[in-house]
Amino acid sequence: MTTPDPRRLAEAFPFWPQLSDSDKHLLLDNTQIHTYRQGDNVHSGRACTGILLVLHGQLRVFLLSDEGREITLYRLLDRDICLQSASCILKSLTYPLQVDAEKDTELYRIAPEAYKEISNRYAQAGTFLAETVSTRFAEAMWVMEQSLFVKFDRRLAAFLLEQAALDEGDRITLTHDQIARHLGSAREVVSRMLKYFQTEGWVSVSRGGIQLLAPEKLQELSQ
Amino acid sequence: MTTPDPRRLAEAFPFWPQLSDSDKHLLLDNTQIHTYRQGDNVHSGRACTGILLVLHGQLRVFLLSDEGREITLYRLLDRDICLQSASCILKSLTYPLQVDAEKDTELYRIAPEAYKEISNRYAQAGTFLAETVSTRFAEAMWVMEQSLFVKFDRRLAAFLLEQAALDEGDRITLTHDQIARHLGSAREVVSRMLKYFQTEGWVSVSRGGIQLLAPEKLQELSQ
Repeated sequence: MTTPDPRRLAEAFPFWPQLSDSDKHLLLDNTQIHTYRQGDNVHSGRACTGILLVLHGQLRVFLLSDEGREITLYRLLDRDICLQSASCILKSLTYPLQVDAEKDTELYRIAPEAYKEISNRYAQAGTFLAETVSTRFAEAMWVMEQSLFVKFDRRLAAFLLEQAALDEGDRITLTHDQIARHLGSAREVVSRMLKYFQTEGWVSVSRGGIQLLAPEKLQELSQ
Repeated sequence: MTTPDPRRLAEAFPFWPQLSDSDKHLLLDNTQIHTYRQGDNVHSGRACTGILLVLHGQLRVFLLSDEGREITLYRLLDRDICLQSASCILKSLTYPLQVDAEKDTELYRIAPEAYKEISNRYAQAGTFLAETVSTRFAEAMWVMEQSLFVKFDRRLAAFLLEQAALDEGDRITLTHDQIARHLGSAREVVSRMLKYFQTEGWVSVSRGGIQLLAPEKLQELSQ
């Protein structure tokens, strides 16, 4: 099936009911379905990939430094919208963020020009842009505060719990290097801290991954 | 003089010419002039202080952690606009940023409710909100990348040059502790690095402040 479902757009955009029929069609005609496999890059840097609306799956939005270091800013789950991948809508959206698929993902890509036209005609579409950008801003500020000011043991404990919740289990299959990239840290630092968590009996680290043994202890540490 | 100057609003808001006369008056009637002395707090946390338009002076927008640690996100100079201090315009502007006056500052404070009314009627006012939030987002991301991934000697060199440029001189009168707060670091780290800069002959550190002796060397280091 290649026709976008208007109900998904209606869910995503609070101003949908105000749009004229022809403007609804303008958005629908400029919406494409894309699928990505786990690990695929969805958006990179200053490209104008479009507005992304996640149907199902999981995307990771992250900063990538010139030296190749990474830190995860936020995840996009079902029904989440990504505007940072549509730099051509706003002239100030120039920050080169990266978006990768963390799980197999199906999403709508909405052409920025079409959205821009709508936001020129409907005040609510502009306000919605501002709301969405500022939500992401708040999430990124939280990450910044964490990464600058919170001790690494607390951050790692919180990350392990968050990751287990996303995977709906108590086992994390990321490598130490991948965890370091999420947290803007180095592999050795992650390995050392996991070893300490293991000594305390909170996790069990093996080649296959990390088993959470005492999530309540991690919870306590993370607060 | 207590009446706001419509020309300042016209400069600040690109959609001003589109506003009806009564909407221009709505904004003007809801604009107040405020003055702050160097060091005053202008906005704190989740208060809805209003949209700030700097007439002249200098504001510092910074993150303050629960533990009292700080990092400067950006400065607002003449004609700059601050929306982060108007959390009630956007329901998602919930991130508790702090704004202090770094120099004696005169500014307009525009009541959020008035701007909100305008943005409900004029699509350009909503887009302008989105543009402004996303400009600040980009600036904050740059600071985050710097603070996580760039070596401290480079960051300190860049900060000294930026600060000298803001003060239009080659002398910085901030304390080591104040510099540490700008950079999200600790006083000892700043003092140690400045001592090293002094050994190299790039700066001269005294009780009264820091004199830049070789800005070209700092420039080189910062790149």
